[in-house]
Amino acid sequence: MFPEYDVIVVGAGHAGCEAAAAAATMGSSVLLITMNMHTIAQMSCNPAMGGVAKGQIVREIDALGGQSGIISDRTMIQFRMLNLSKGPAMWSPRCQSDRVLFAQEWRNTLEENPRVDFWQDTAKEIVLEDGKACGVVTSLGITIRSKSVVLTNGTFLNGLIHIGEKQFGGGRTGEKSATGLTEQLVGLGFESGRMKTGTPPRVDGRSLDYSKMEEQPGDEIPSKFSYTDTQPLAKQRSCWITYTNEEVHKVLRTGFEKSPMFSGRIKGIGPRYCPSVEDKINRFADKDRHQIFVEPEGWDTVEVYVNGFSTSLPEDVQYAAMRKIPGFENAKMFRPGYAIEYDYFPPTQLKSTLETHLVSNLFFAGQINGTTGYEEAACQGLMAGINAHQNVHQKEPFTLKRSEAYIGVLIDDLINKGTEEPYRMFTSRAEYRTLLRQDNADIRLTAKGHALGLASQERLEKVQEKEKQMAELSEKLSQHKYQPAEINPALERLDTSLIREKTSLYQLLKRPQITIAKILEAHPPIQELLEGYTADAILQAEIHLKYDSYIEKEMLLVEKMNKLEDLSIVENFNYDAVTSLSYEGREKLKRTRPTTIGQASRISGVSPSDISVLMLFIGR
Amino acid sequence: MFPEYDVIVVGAGHAGCEAAAAAATMGSSVLLITMNMHTIAQMSCNPAMGGVAKGQIVREIDALGGQSGIISDRTMIQFRMLNLSKGPAMWSPRCQSDRVLFAQEWRNTLEENPRVDFWQDTAKEIVLEDGKACGVVTSLGITIRSKSVVLTNGTFLNGLIHIGEKQFGGGRTGEKSATGLTEQLVGLGFESGRMKTGTPPRVDGRSLDYSKMEEQPGDEIPSKFSYTDTQPLAKQRSCWITYTNEEVHKVLRTGFEKSPMFSGRIKGIGPRYCPSVEDKINRFADKDRHQIFVEPEGWDTVEVYVNGFSTSLPEDVQYAAMRKIPGFENAKMFRPGYAIEYDYFPPTQLKSTLETHLVSNLFFAGQINGTTGYEEAACQGLMAGINAHQNVHQKEPFTLKRSEAYIGVLIDDLINKGTEEPYRMFTSRAEYRTLLRQDNADIRLTAKGHALGLASQERLEKVQEKEKQMAELSEKLSQHKYQPAEINPALERLDTSLIREKTSLYQLLKRPQITIAKILEAHPPIQELLEGYTADAILQAEIHLKYDSYIEKEMLLVEKMNKLEDLSIVENFNYDAVTSLSYEGREKLKRTRPTTIGQASRISGVSPSDISVLMLFIGR
Ligand SMILES: Cc1cc2nc3c(=O)[nH]c(=O)nc-3n(C[C@H](O)[C@H](O)[C@H](O)COP(=O)(O)OP(=O)(O)OC[C@H]3O[C@@H](n4cnc5c(N)ncnc54)[C@H](O)[C@@H]3O)c2cc1C
Ligand SMILES: Cc1cc2nc3c(=O)[nH]c(=O)nc-3n(C[C@H](O)[C@H](O)[C@H](O)COP(=O)(O)OP(=O)(O)OC[C@H]3O[C@@H](n4cnc5c(N)ncnc54)[C@H](O)[C@@H]3O)c2cc1C
Repeated sequence: MFPEYDVIVVGAGHAGCEAAAAAATMGSSVLLITMNMHTIAQMSCNPAMGGVAKGQIVREIDALGGQSGIISDRTMIQFRMLNLSKGPAMWSPRCQSDRVLFAQEWRNTLEENPRVDFWQDTAKEIVLEDGKACGVVTSLGITIRSKSVVLTNGTFLNGLIHIGEKQFGGGRTGEKSATGLTEQLVGLGFESGRMKTGTPPRVDGRSLDYSKMEEQPGDEIPSKFSYTDTQPLAKQRSCWITYTNEEVHKVLRTGFEKSPMFSGRIKGIGPRYCPSVEDKINRFADKDRHQIFVEPEGWDTVEVYVNGFSTSLPEDVQYAAMRKIPGFENAKMFRPGYAIEYDYFPPTQLKSTLETHLVSNLFFAGQINGTTGYEEAACQGLMAGINAHQNVHQKEPFTLKRSEAYIGVLIDDLINKGTEEPYRMFTSRAEYRTLLRQDNADIRLTAKGHALGLASQERLEKVQEKEKQMAELSEKLSQHKYQPAEINPALERLDTSLIREKTSLYQLLKRPQITIAKILEAHPPIQELLEGYTADAILQAEIHLKYDSYIEKEMLLVEKMNKLEDLSIVENFNYDAVTSLSYEGREKLKRTRPTTIGQASRISGVSPSDISVLMLFIGR
Repeated sequence: MFPEYDVIVVGAGHAGCEAAAAAATMGSSVLLITMNMHTIAQMSCNPAMGGVAKGQIVREIDALGGQSGIISDRTMIQFRMLNLSKGPAMWSPRCQSDRVLFAQEWRNTLEENPRVDFWQDTAKEIVLEDGKACGVVTSLGITIRSKSVVLTNGTFLNGLIHIGEKQFGGGRTGEKSATGLTEQLVGLGFESGRMKTGTPPRVDGRSLDYSKMEEQPGDEIPSKFSYTDTQPLAKQRSCWITYTNEEVHKVLRTGFEKSPMFSGRIKGIGPRYCPSVEDKINRFADKDRHQIFVEPEGWDTVEVYVNGFSTSLPEDVQYAAMRKIPGFENAKMFRPGYAIEYDYFPPTQLKSTLETHLVSNLFFAGQINGTTGYEEAACQGLMAGINAHQNVHQKEPFTLKRSEAYIGVLIDDLINKGTEEPYRMFTSRAEYRTLLRQDNADIRLTAKGHALGLASQERLEKVQEKEKQMAELSEKLSQHKYQPAEINPALERLDTSLIREKTSLYQLLKRPQITIAKILEAHPPIQELLEGYTADAILQAEIHLKYDSYIEKEMLLVEKMNKLEDLSIVENFNYDAVTSLSYEGREKLKRTRPTTIGQASRISGVSPSDISVLMLFIGR
């Protein structure tokens, strides 16, 4: 019934959609197998993309030529740049999405890709030949062959839903779970574990009293995710902020006895950084309130997402507690919150391409690797899709260094350190975060995406032009010098100390009180210097001038580190032959099989002395 | 957690949505409980509304103040008035819908209704007190109380999906089935049965060769369903027609051995008039081809519905056979066709209000009553919603006679004759079909809908104006007389015999060759007579003049029949006391409990002599 495909992608969540789009755009024939064609790119939890560190990831996906940024832009209902009061390394784009439009736009995008075929079915088994993945068997009993397989099963593998004392099988509420794959993979020698995550109740926006909440409007001049010509929003919907209180907590506590988490019924480990509300009041008993973000689910719908109130307590406790929240006195629920437990595969079983060590041509991406979040899933999908394509066409593997992208940090963390709890991205995970900014993801990555055949020529030219403008303008701005008489009135207005001698704009821009925007307001003639430069280029130049010392410092670190990264270790390196390695170090090295000394140095359990031994052995 | 509602509607299919909208619009507080809020008003099968007899139903729903017509208009991608070459009784509006938009529009419509609350959950049990329904228990174990309950479970009760030799539990592919309710109801003494229906595979439009098919565009001047001011389509998508052939049939036959239908694995009875393709080639072995309509699923999607190719043969047989259809040589499948078996309740257990005889305040509507089709489901939902409201507020039941609406025919057929196979509406089921036209549904029903508080004042005024215009214009047209010299040139052009003496327009319009549109073209001065009348009023006047003898004949029949309908039988009439009734007649009467002699006369098993006996007893 089916031809042999280059790539079969199992699952059409955020990871699967990016994987399919990437491999197909690069030229592979792709079959996307998913349980229900009506739920392609369904947002399982909150209707939002981006946020701190996650927004950077979306920008990186976009810069490489992935789709999540474009689709987010086309379907958002609110946009905010978070952390604008901090340094540019912290600036993080975030949008509220229309849940239905987001899914629809992903489906249209995939349908427009002539190399993506679809099949609605459940993959039950991987077809193996000589230890290589070469297709799947579905629950209809069909065998479909392919040159590689990307698994992106999300929360569906043996998914078990909990609400209070009730349990149902399911991959999301109302959807079936997927069985068979875990069992087969464990039989093959894979290690699997259990994790859990949760979601809050959804309520009827018509029943809320917004006058008791704080409004959180979108940015006045909204930006967007994609470097392409998607349009920023002309109108936006607001979110609202309210708080739990002691009364809410008291009611929630009445349900603790029946809580699947506290009773031990849930065995999986939950996301520490995205805890349920019962977890929060349990762990932070001294905090008398927690913030709740009240987020619309789309342009027209009255359904509202109660961000911060994730819970698996019995639904009547959820309900009673919720009604104690200011603004929720008359709240009507549409659906209760719930927790879900699912199988994942510790990601230390993966290469940096996301291919498994055990089975060639088999890739894992998304929540199946123990991560949480759409963005984390999407970027893994993109990388797995790229590498599945590269693999099929005997091309170089494509990986990103920790110094090149958050995506590099994420995958490096996963495969070297593994994760004991759902892994979420934070800026603090990136040691080079001054380099890995949301504003320069295109400069960092678009040429790479273009070389892969993923980012278009147009994108490449756009970023080249941006770099050119930035270099030119940086030069111009740093050369430009002011006489005290000329600029002091402006400096006075900006409440910053006056200059006594001729001073360059470069030096002035170092001052925290001065930005190009502010100086432009205080001293309009500067406009002349900026004439003809895009806003993007101006921002780049400004950041580079203002933060050049930080940037340089990080670049030096990167260079040092890269020396280690350049020391590669052959794939079949025989660690047993290196007798002076520590026992633990050798075992971890054998399991993780790092490809460079740099990677080896980040494996937990591998000591600095192990690294010295290795370096000696390798020839330095 | 919940207040006591006036009406709980279980299920948000076509029946449940109309029921909820109607009861809430009339003033009841409504809770709509459905298994998955993402599948509200999902079209399970073909993305189309209306068609022969079904289009009339949609017009009737609209005229009464229901929503299906408006929603169809807003979300259609093609419109055709079927049977225009036949008499106006046969004209039937039909549209192709955008599947996703249709569902979304229904959800928005319900959300805009302030009296409709939502709850995502599965109803497992009806709460009973003193033999009356007063709420439901859900699978979360929640008891929600109400003054009445409307069940609209569609194909979900113990749903079982078949593809070849494989079987899965499910209410639709990828969705869970619903258990518990059948078991409880049967325990209470309800009779239940099994039916089945099927759906064709969906294919990738990009893989079809349309040059080998006939195009079927929408009407050049498209009309619409609703009498309100929805807009007709400005652009449309085409459908395509192709045919099966001997080769297709040969391949299909190779799967017969594994067919769940032919092997006896499917026990439910399928729709005779909407058979699977294997059924067609089996039953009509002499036919060497069957028509296939290739229908787009929406404005943008490449997914295509293969109307006429419904099948539950093994998917590889479906696939191989399909590829023998002209234009499908390279077809790629998205999902295979399947059959589904489900529980229904023989509708003879219902009153004409759709309340059950056994349990007061409990209503059944839609596929649960053994019908098939969205329109049939929607109109039952509307009637059940209306009557649930009337019931809660101690108001008169609302029913429609066979002479008033297809809806009346449908319900009368169901409750009196029952159905052994999925019941679908046809024009032939209506003995007064010249009266029950799609063009006059507003004249027939809007005043009733308005009296109920369902159709708006604006609608009422609009139809009153239409009637006024029509009466005036009919009068004018029938009075208007032509001299031979004046009109003969036009008659000659229209290829109809010339007149010799002064003749009224009324007489001329009787001729089959003459319509107002044609005469207007041949004899423009007639325009003067029409000045100031709406197109609707002109059409009404024309039909009334042209077909007045037929209309009058049917009206006489209706009058006769109405005499019997006016003879009412009290609800607790003691049939056992009427000893001269036949045994079968008495049993059927006791079971069906007709409310009038007219209804009694239509119960299968009740003989004319039983009717005479009854009439004597009742006092004539
Ligand atoms: C209840 C819930 C709460 C969550 N809460 C949070 C949160 O608080 N914070 C946060 O960051 N993230 C949360 N998430 C996680 C977030 O939804 C996921 O991280 C993200 O969706 C993962 O994307 P994915 O592509 O890996 O998988 P998913 O989005 O889960 O998609 C998996 C896809 O694979 C399909 N599939 C699965 N198995 C098969 C098979 N065998 N054959 C065919 N198709 C298959 C499914 O139908 C689905 O389309 C939550 C998820 C759930 C379900
Ligand atoms: C595979 C298939 C093929 C079909 N083929 C044809 C055809 O060829 N021709 C034709 O005319 N018609 C066909 N139909 C029928 C058509 O889809 C139905 O007639 C129509 O949808 C019935 O509408 P309904 O409102 O009665 O039920 P449905 O549209 O089935 O809706 C039922 C709703 O109830 C919900 N529900 C069910 N049980 C519960 C519960 N216990 N608690 C809460 N919610 C519940 C479901 O989630 C769903 O939303 C087909 C249907 C299917 C599934």
